[in-house]
Amino acid sequence: MPEPLRLGIAGLGTVGAGVLILLQEQQELLRQRCGRALQVTAVSARDRSKRRGVTLPSDVTWFDDARELAKAGDVDVVIELIGGAEGIARQVVESALDAGKHVVTANKALLALHGSQLAAQAEKADRALCYEAAVGGGIPVIKAIREGLAANRFERVYGILNGTCNYILTKMEDTGAGFNEVLLEAQDLGYAEADPSFDVDGIDTAHKLSILASLAYGAHVDFSAVYIEGIRHVGALDIQFAREFGYRIKLLGLARRTEHGIEQRVHPCMTPLGSPISEVSGVTNAVVAVGNYAGQSVFEGPGAGAGPTASAVIADIVDIARNQILPPFAAPSSQLERAPASPMTLHQGAYYVRLTVLDQPGVMAGITAIMAEHGVSIDSIIQRARAPGAGVPVVMITHETEELRMNQVLAQLSAMKQVIETPVRIRIEKL
Amino acid sequence: MPEPLRLGIAGLGTVGAGVLILLQEQQELLRQRCGRALQVTAVSARDRSKRRGVTLPSDVTWFDDARELAKAGDVDVVIELIGGAEGIARQVVESALDAGKHVVTANKALLALHGSQLAAQAEKADRALCYEAAVGGGIPVIKAIREGLAANRFERVYGILNGTCNYILTKMEDTGAGFNEVLLEAQDLGYAEADPSFDVDGIDTAHKLSILASLAYGAHVDFSAVYIEGIRHVGALDIQFAREFGYRIKLLGLARRTEHGIEQRVHPCMTPLGSPISEVSGVTNAVVAVGNYAGQSVFEGPGAGAGPTASAVIADIVDIARNQILPPFAAPSSQLERAPASPMTLHQGAYYVRLTVLDQPGVMAGITAIMAEHGVSIDSIIQRARAPGAGVPVVMITHETEELRMNQVLAQLSAMKQVIETPVRIRIEKL
Repeated sequence: MPEPLRLGIAGLGTVGAGVLILLQEQQELLRQRCGRALQVTAVSARDRSKRRGVTLPSDVTWFDDARELAKAGDVDVVIELIGGAEGIARQVVESALDAGKHVVTANKALLALHGSQLAAQAEKADRALCYEAAVGGGIPVIKAIREGLAANRFERVYGILNGTCNYILTKMEDTGAGFNEVLLEAQDLGYAEADPSFDVDGIDTAHKLSILASLAYGAHVDFSAVYIEGIRHVGALDIQFAREFGYRIKLLGLARRTEHGIEQRVHPCMTPLGSPISEVSGVTNAVVAVGNYAGQSVFEGPGAGAGPTASAVIADIVDIARNQILPPFAAPSSQLERAPASPMTLHQGAYYVRLTVLDQPGVMAGITAIMAEHGVSIDSIIQRARAPGAGVPVVMITHETEELRMNQVLAQLSAMKQVIETPVRIRIEKL
Repeated sequence: MPEPLRLGIAGLGTVGAGVLILLQEQQELLRQRCGRALQVTAVSARDRSKRRGVTLPSDVTWFDDARELAKAGDVDVVIELIGGAEGIARQVVESALDAGKHVVTANKALLALHGSQLAAQAEKADRALCYEAAVGGGIPVIKAIREGLAANRFERVYGILNGTCNYILTKMEDTGAGFNEVLLEAQDLGYAEADPSFDVDGIDTAHKLSILASLAYGAHVDFSAVYIEGIRHVGALDIQFAREFGYRIKLLGLARRTEHGIEQRVHPCMTPLGSPISEVSGVTNAVVAVGNYAGQSVFEGPGAGAGPTASAVIADIVDIARNQILPPFAAPSSQLERAPASPMTLHQGAYYVRLTVLDQPGVMAGITAIMAEHGVSIDSIIQRARAPGAGVPVVMITHETEELRMNQVLAQLSAMKQVIETPVRIRIEKL
């Protein structure tokens, strides 16, 4: 049997501890499946005394500075679980590749922002840079797109990539409560961070989307090209109206190639009730890949947590142990395209718009005149409540139109003096 | 760039033609993704003159006998798309491995019956034997279990593995029609074969299940150990009652490890409404893998058809072109377990039973006495219709019990003179 593969784990938070536990509990199984032993030789974390629910073997070297671990002589694979796009995490990955180590990471921010240059560095060093855990938690979706569906051009790739947002939207629907109330509850339960903005403002989803898009379209990762909108503006009323119109609101990340380049966008979507993605509830993640030969494949599972993330991290380690190593983005970096970003203003689609207007005669005429002026045609319009002189919701569904026109329409609607709140716009996806 | 990978395609039916078309249409994309060209150098089919919707390049060698193609000098990978567990298909695969070729096949029957010895042969020859297309059509589920979830022990693996059966069950629910009527329609539409028994009697599902079970549990493929029941006995009434009780009937293949060995079973199941598997409709396939770290992953997509199957076949070819080659069942054959089959009589579960009884006084007392005698406890029992002296349905849901007891109960119920049709038993799965 070949030599053991020696692992250095940088970062012993929830995921790092989960990786250690999995490696200990399933040592024999992994040895069988890899054809060699996996041996943790080094770890690094700031606080040596913290309880982590796992006992370190006595022969493991402890590094206070993860950057030292990255260069340690008895480490073949550095597992970066520190997080963050800059600072120590980035230095650890760069130093490790520099020192000729393979790298496994769960760090989507790092890959979204520096994926291309790190991939080039890994290829130059002839080492692996693996990141199955960065997208979709335990679901092996990176491998599915990079390998399992490698015969396909992708018509689109999209998904629910952030469990916190999906939990909040599911709870809002189940309880009728508003965003802020549900967010507080999610924070209490540990499903949302104290500072929730990475999640609820769509940034985490965008990090993951940019990685998926790069793989699916053979292009350099381009996080800066992602159009990003979070879920803070989604109201309890919108959730309710969505259902009436036959939709459910989900925060999706979507990528596709258009005639203008690659479109990457993250925003709340009206998804048709009954479509697989609309049925994904709670913290579950799902990725849908529509290939020109494979058709629509759906991959669904827990999107976060110590167990699923550890499962994905170790899948990468197993690949390395089995010597199954590919360029990080499947094709060599030099062959990846620098694709232009398809501008959001050219996006075509139908829209849901909710206005809060003063219930006065002539309001509907004013609204519909603005729509007509910009050539946006209305599929349906509802003003249900009556409260003469007070604010009431007016909800519209448009026919398919261009984002730019909708921007102009919304600007003019906002400027109407009877429109007393910022209009809510949610894009409708035919999935 | 390395030399082209030379492909020989044995069998030019729907799938073979699909593979040729994909290779032609996406030649450049595949060259990029593989880092080398994929070149068809040889094909084989019985009838040269048949129209297949694809033009063969002039430099392709045509073999009337696929067994000759298997040994051709200018072929690196033999793609076996003939089908069938014996005869030519088997000879082609054996000859190809013998001649030092890699083999890609979509042949689940061949793998279910001879997978272990073919794997051993491939390993000895140091060549790939790949079969992504054999299970789940275009869904990359073999790769997901063999690689993406390699860090997990599987609590269970199950799925809807046959599109024909799922189509029939979906249509029966949608229309209220009976099995035979829907089968005829499915045959007209090309969703069912003229001889449908491989599909509707559960054999195709069992072939696929035995492959999944081998991969998931590191054991030799053991098709003979699969308990198999098809869907012919499922009546329109059962579909209707299922819904009332909160279930939907699906033909599942299920595998898990019990204290007695590996349980493999194929039969109609009552699946809880709202569970992912219950929502899979029509010809779609789905596989659910429950890992002890990754949790529940669901993989869903088209389970058959030229496009999806070609996508899976070519994913295997891409792996070979990228030199990503593993033992066919992940671990070397010599390390696979010869696991005992967990006997079906020891299976534990709840049951749905439908009897057709003469509407006479004392019938219910007779039925319940038999259940009590065998210690099978009843969760609910329904006799809704009244037709004194004629046949009416009596439907029962049991609490969890042992299969052996249910067998005894059903034998005694069948023997009651008021029971005028063979009892229908459908197992309830808590998924």
